[in-house]
Amino acid sequence: MLNTNGYKSLMHFKDVLTPTTFLERTGRVFPNKTAIVEGKDIITYGTLLSRARCLADLLDSLNIRYGDRVAVLAENCLTVIDAHFGIPAIGAILVMLNPSLTSSEIEYLLDFSGASILILDANFSHKVLPECQLRLKHLKNIIIFNGTCDLDNAIDYEKYIDRQHKSNRELDKVIRDENDILTINFTSGTTGSPKGVMCSHRGAYLHSLGQILMLGLNPQSRYLWTLPMFHVNGWGHIWASTAISATQIIYSSYSKEEEILSLLHQYSITHLCGAPRIVRKLIKQVSENQKYTELTITTGGATPPPSLIQELIKIGVRFIHQYGLSETYGPFIVCEKQEEWDKMPFDRQAKFLLRQGVPCIHAGTGMRVVDKDMRDVPKDGHTLGEVIMKGNTVSTGYFKNQEATEQAFRNGWFHSGDIAVVHLDGYIEIRDRIKDLIYVETDHGWENISSIEIENFLSSHKYVNEAAVIGIPTKNTSRIIAFVEIANNLSVNEKDLKEFCNKGLPEYKCPEAFYFKTLPKTSTGKIRKNILLADILPDTLERTLC
Amino acid sequence: MLNTNGYKSLMHFKDVLTPTTFLERTGRVFPNKTAIVEGKDIITYGTLLSRARCLADLLDSLNIRYGDRVAVLAENCLTVIDAHFGIPAIGAILVMLNPSLTSSEIEYLLDFSGASILILDANFSHKVLPECQLRLKHLKNIIIFNGTCDLDNAIDYEKYIDRQHKSNRELDKVIRDENDILTINFTSGTTGSPKGVMCSHRGAYLHSLGQILMLGLNPQSRYLWTLPMFHVNGWGHIWASTAISATQIIYSSYSKEEEILSLLHQYSITHLCGAPRIVRKLIKQVSENQKYTELTITTGGATPPPSLIQELIKIGVRFIHQYGLSETYGPFIVCEKQEEWDKMPFDRQAKFLLRQGVPCIHAGTGMRVVDKDMRDVPKDGHTLGEVIMKGNTVSTGYFKNQEATEQAFRNGWFHSGDIAVVHLDGYIEIRDRIKDLIYVETDHGWENISSIEIENFLSSHKYVNEAAVIGIPTKNTSRIIAFVEIANNLSVNEKDLKEFCNKGLPEYKCPEAFYFKTLPKTSTGKIRKNILLADILPDTLERTLC
Repeated sequence: MLNTNGYKSLMHFKDVLTPTTFLERTGRVFPNKTAIVEGKDIITYGTLLSRARCLADLLDSLNIRYGDRVAVLAENCLTVIDAHFGIPAIGAILVMLNPSLTSSEIEYLLDFSGASILILDANFSHKVLPECQLRLKHLKNIIIFNGTCDLDNAIDYEKYIDRQHKSNRELDKVIRDENDILTINFTSGTTGSPKGVMCSHRGAYLHSLGQILMLGLNPQSRYLWTLPMFHVNGWGHIWASTAISATQIIYSSYSKEEEILSLLHQYSITHLCGAPRIVRKLIKQVSENQKYTELTITTGGATPPPSLIQELIKIGVRFIHQYGLSETYGPFIVCEKQEEWDKMPFDRQAKFLLRQGVPCIHAGTGMRVVDKDMRDVPKDGHTLGEVIMKGNTVSTGYFKNQEATEQAFRNGWFHSGDIAVVHLDGYIEIRDRIKDLIYVETDHGWENISSIEIENFLSSHKYVNEAAVIGIPTKNTSRIIAFVEIANNLSVNEKDLKEFCNKGLPEYKCPEAFYFKTLPKTSTGKIRKNILLADILPDTLERTLC
Repeated sequence: MLNTNGYKSLMHFKDVLTPTTFLERTGRVFPNKTAIVEGKDIITYGTLLSRARCLADLLDSLNIRYGDRVAVLAENCLTVIDAHFGIPAIGAILVMLNPSLTSSEIEYLLDFSGASILILDANFSHKVLPECQLRLKHLKNIIIFNGTCDLDNAIDYEKYIDRQHKSNRELDKVIRDENDILTINFTSGTTGSPKGVMCSHRGAYLHSLGQILMLGLNPQSRYLWTLPMFHVNGWGHIWASTAISATQIIYSSYSKEEEILSLLHQYSITHLCGAPRIVRKLIKQVSENQKYTELTITTGGATPPPSLIQELIKIGVRFIHQYGLSETYGPFIVCEKQEEWDKMPFDRQAKFLLRQGVPCIHAGTGMRVVDKDMRDVPKDGHTLGEVIMKGNTVSTGYFKNQEATEQAFRNGWFHSGDIAVVHLDGYIEIRDRIKDLIYVETDHGWENISSIEIENFLSSHKYVNEAAVIGIPTKNTSRIIAFVEIANNLSVNEKDLKEFCNKGLPEYKCPEAFYFKTLPKTSTGKIRKNILLADILPDTLERTLC
């Protein structure tokens, strides 16, 4: 065929970009190298390749076809890694579910995504009710591991793997178009209008290579899984670690968090990632004289407090601050360290490093901060604008939600909803979110939850007219406060609403305090949350909402 | 638009993959970081970005359009780096010329490529004759640097750069299709007319990221340019170094080669690359007790002798052996080191490391060794087959040479012409060039024998300096002819060598005739077998060697 500059070239030589290639190559080149350490088990790249091929065979035998959705409900474990290669190997779409979700939320997402298969960690089998299976006609089979379950059409995963002969299937050969969907990751808004962020094979491939470069992963790296794998596919680090043939260490979240420190020493960990809260917990356990010069810690998800950055620098850690969203496959922006910062006192360094920064290598130049008319804000460290992003590692849209897609991805850019300033050196610094997301700690990690979701739930109470929910950041998590306007002078008290919430929301989404009052609004009808907050916490107003 | 698995996705979010993005990003993020050291000059990434933008502006002002060819005749220098970004920034095609070529060879390539502009190092201006300029109507302008020239329409490059205001052109915005041609590199084939290997923006982008990973480049790396930049775009390392914001140190080839060692110390060089011949020269200067544990040396182009590898390991160098061709953007195969090799004695390590190996990360799984019916040869370390390659970093064909393209890229794979065996661990080892294979009749049927094997055997004779062996096809078998260069006027005759061969080779591998002479070579040191053959059999030249 003739390409656009007129020379006959051979397009069929182009290989599709898909992260399954990484395991196909590493499994062949380093079959005996340790891929994964999980408790006492050591899994080589040869075994991982073989497991992923078996999973693909199993799905194929269950008549899962190109584009079908396969959901996974599990904590960090080997099977989740298998799933990240075995599912896309047949062109099916991976849907990771958050194990903190309630039964009804899980059912909703299984329904909405139209999943044909659920790969289920038996520790969460109580969350999938038999009635749900009856209602969801498209859910053909359950693939169960870590134990058994009473659900119909359940297949024991490990038994299948043990029984299988060696599969010769190649993982990276079926993808028709690298822009086809590889995963759907659900953002926190789980009711009303769920948004399933679609990520492509091309995007995941390029994002993975970019993350290797940003983190400085190499074949000798030992990566500790402190990040939840269900969260934006663990920032793509399953694929990245596999591409560079690093070793991944998984620990059970049932182990106490203090164990992280001993794992760090036991496995000479070189890389770990997590929200500032996780990193803070780890640092608290470290004695001041201990140095960790071989350790790289990457944070994201929230702005790290300067004190935390200083502590990390003091103990010799290489600190990386990345920023991104589900819509950008995780990290898209990084606070690249300039050589001259090294010479600064720690507190000054920390001030530079808490900024979100500049585009990652894989993000190229696809970042802007703009006003509502899409004009770039000046580089003055002062003028607020919205962070917008564009590039190969920006989502191709929301699954079955054209309206939300058109809204968020308007004008050819993804609108993050995050408000930032641009400093003179081009580094951005996030100042707020447009949407009121609340950052909370859960049993299985951390999450940004939507105040709108809780508000909608409260409003579903027959006596509640309207509700406004605010998260007040505390040291480790957020306090969720609800302001409620009661209909027609009906009688409902805090205890009633707490019970109502406990029945329908996961515990971490339940407000801890309720205030009953008429909600103040702007002329266009939006609730003025800053006024509500000022009533109860006047001194925090400036800090929490600007 | 709907992609092939049926979900509406936003294709316009996809950015074109082009290596110009690397400078656009690094120049903005690290404007004050040292990009290039050239003699006493230090050029920052900010300056490099600005120079490349100026070059793009200049070409634009000279009416160079998308797909036009711009040739460069220069030794390793800053301007060549500018050219690797400034030319593709307007969608023009970069044609690097080997400065060792003669005037008539240069004219041929300028004519064949249809170059509109020649960027000319004044040190080579004597190679571009005024008559040539008269004959080549498409050659509009000369952009001269490093001095002046008497050619018509010559523009002084540095004067232009100095005069220009800061350009705001973005380097990575005009490419319409990432599969469009970025460069044409002419092969230095020992026979026939040169072939212009077309490389795409997509291929160069992915190859560059892959080379960062294979070499282990990072932002602190200091890369010494021992590799010629005209040679397959310096294996893509201009783009790779820029992407990761490493510092590139250029030295003038006019400086004595002994200076390499002092540069190594002066700049704490972390990476250098070259053919085994170059590396050998460097190693000879190193004292045995000196350790270079921070240095990575990559060889390619020819199989490194085991003794060289041992010497490198002894001085603590991290040694990498890569293999590739112009048609694979340079390195495509790498001898990935297995952990267990570290524990072996140096001589055994060297035997593993001299093998060409397995596909690079960017090459995925696109390598096979096949017989003439495209069947994979067994992994027995013995059966010969042709190395064939496929992937994003395989050329899209030969410029204006459909016949050669169809021949070399048949059946969806690039046929390298290199003959290899596959070992049990999947690593390939090159044994010969296909055109140097000799088809002979043996007692047991037919066999392909390697001319290199016979040459190596002859060279093991204490009086023989070097040997070249050629097979001349006859009706049923081949006649084996040996050309021998004798050391220091020592005396050895045909009878002596026949006896020598009869003792050490099976009968069917013994040459039937010997010619004693100085062996003619190309500028890159390859023996010109076609000239040897033409001397004795002028009429068979075209038929036997194409």
